[in-house]
Amino acid sequence: MDRNLPIGIFDSGVGGLTVYKALHERLPNERFVYLGDTARVPYGTKSLATVERYAVENSKFLEALGIKMLVVACNTASALALPAIRRAVNVEVVGVIEPGARAAVRETPNKRIGVIATEATVQSHAYRQAISAIDRSAEVIEQACPLFVSLAEEGWSDTPVARDVAVQYLSNLNAETLGALVLGCTHYPILRKVIADVVGEGVVLIDSGQATAAEVKTFLKQSDLAHSDTSALYQERHLCDDLDHFYVTDAASRFAKVAERFLGVAPTILEAVEIWGNDELRSH
Amino acid sequence: MDRNLPIGIFDSGVGGLTVYKALHERLPNERFVYLGDTARVPYGTKSLATVERYAVENSKFLEALGIKMLVVACNTASALALPAIRRAVNVEVVGVIEPGARAAVRETPNKRIGVIATEATVQSHAYRQAISAIDRSAEVIEQACPLFVSLAEEGWSDTPVARDVAVQYLSNLNAETLGALVLGCTHYPILRKVIADVVGEGVVLIDSGQATAAEVKTFLKQSDLAHSDTSALYQERHLCDDLDHFYVTDAASRFAKVAERFLGVAPTILEAVEIWGNDELRSH
Repeated sequence: MDRNLPIGIFDSGVGGLTVYKALHERLPNERFVYLGDTARVPYGTKSLATVERYAVENSKFLEALGIKMLVVACNTASALALPAIRRAVNVEVVGVIEPGARAAVRETPNKRIGVIATEATVQSHAYRQAISAIDRSAEVIEQACPLFVSLAEEGWSDTPVARDVAVQYLSNLNAETLGALVLGCTHYPILRKVIADVVGEGVVLIDSGQATAAEVKTFLKQSDLAHSDTSALYQERHLCDDLDHFYVTDAASRFAKVAERFLGVAPTILEAVEIWGNDELRSH
Repeated sequence: MDRNLPIGIFDSGVGGLTVYKALHERLPNERFVYLGDTARVPYGTKSLATVERYAVENSKFLEALGIKMLVVACNTASALALPAIRRAVNVEVVGVIEPGARAAVRETPNKRIGVIATEATVQSHAYRQAISAIDRSAEVIEQACPLFVSLAEEGWSDTPVARDVAVQYLSNLNAETLGALVLGCTHYPILRKVIADVVGEGVVLIDSGQATAAEVKTFLKQSDLAHSDTSALYQERHLCDDLDHFYVTDAASRFAKVAERFLGVAPTILEAVEIWGNDELRSH
């Protein structure tokens, strides 16, 4: 495997940019190719079979571009489709659920862990299973928060409406009794401030994207796959600069607009592609 | 054309059930086949090319089942894809934009008409163009309200959060100066009460689905296509009974749950199908 290849990242849409940002911050020498499946977003309300199909198509697209490893930024795809993705591609595949689960167990002395995520992720109980596999005595309380995605994309993350919605959802978790709360959807870190206000200081917020970025860094080092170029070029990287390539399956202008909302900057290189149907890859 | 064939209805997902309900109430002798494209919902944030492709696939699927006419319940698909649909199928195609526009002009003596809809419908200016074609002096103010869809599907249509969101969006419209406000997305009638409270009694709310149902009734009569059976069987119809068939492209159980929220009853006959790729129709 060529250590100077980029790292592939896919997400159902724009939310995975929070994971890209976390990776970019920890791995300034790496290049990234990001695919947002904006033609079929969201995944969080869809079925196992459909999420698997979409995730495999996305993964094959990125593998065909040439990547040294694949980060599945989407929590729903990580929860439902990791085995299918690993069967479909020949590179190392890292999802966000297990790193998030490990970080949650580490940060929760009282062993009461809350998880907020999409409907599909909650129904899969992927976080509960991953946490139980690490510590069988941990108690996991899960809550779907579908409106958080729209609030983040609308740019309403720091508004009274967002606060009211957060109060409504988080009251089901008895947040004051929790040790940690996992932000189990890539959009939720955008609402971090409001969520932190509502749950209070005693609850540690776990950003699965951050936890994943830390584990990817360790993996690259251990596997001797870190980029070999540590020249000035790579030291002065900026988010969304022209060393990172972004692909979307639809509506690039909307993606750029929301990216700017999430990251403060839009991708320099952003291309719309078609990835569906019979393993055929068509660029338009 | 066999007048005893069902009427086809498609929507991007569950929202079109408000149009189904309006049709069912006005046309108790008719049978319906409904397709919700739940694998690819929502359309309102997607591009023209993608919405056209999805809409044409949906339309061909329903035509192949045998229908006497097609109602495009989805406002976004009606706004962006009617010409493509009409090229693709050989039955009469009715969208919801033009009936909604006609009803709005009829109900608005002061000629100031507000339109709330998805981002894609607003960007297409389909309502503005349809209204201008009827009355060039009408003033049309458009506003995208993306959060309304999540609020409706979440069952939060009559909550303080929904009210706050409505106040936020509708303040951009100077609603108190409007003659009428078009509910230009199939989900919005679910929020009718909150929207009516916020805009006040002086503004007539136009439900494009209701306007479309009225025009479909007229069309069937004029074209001699109304169902010929007026026996007791058809007089005692209920919403979602076994004379109407519902298809979804994904996640049938979630569709049934939201359908019950919207209509008070879930479909008796509900089937998941695959409709994508190279004109191939596969049932699973």
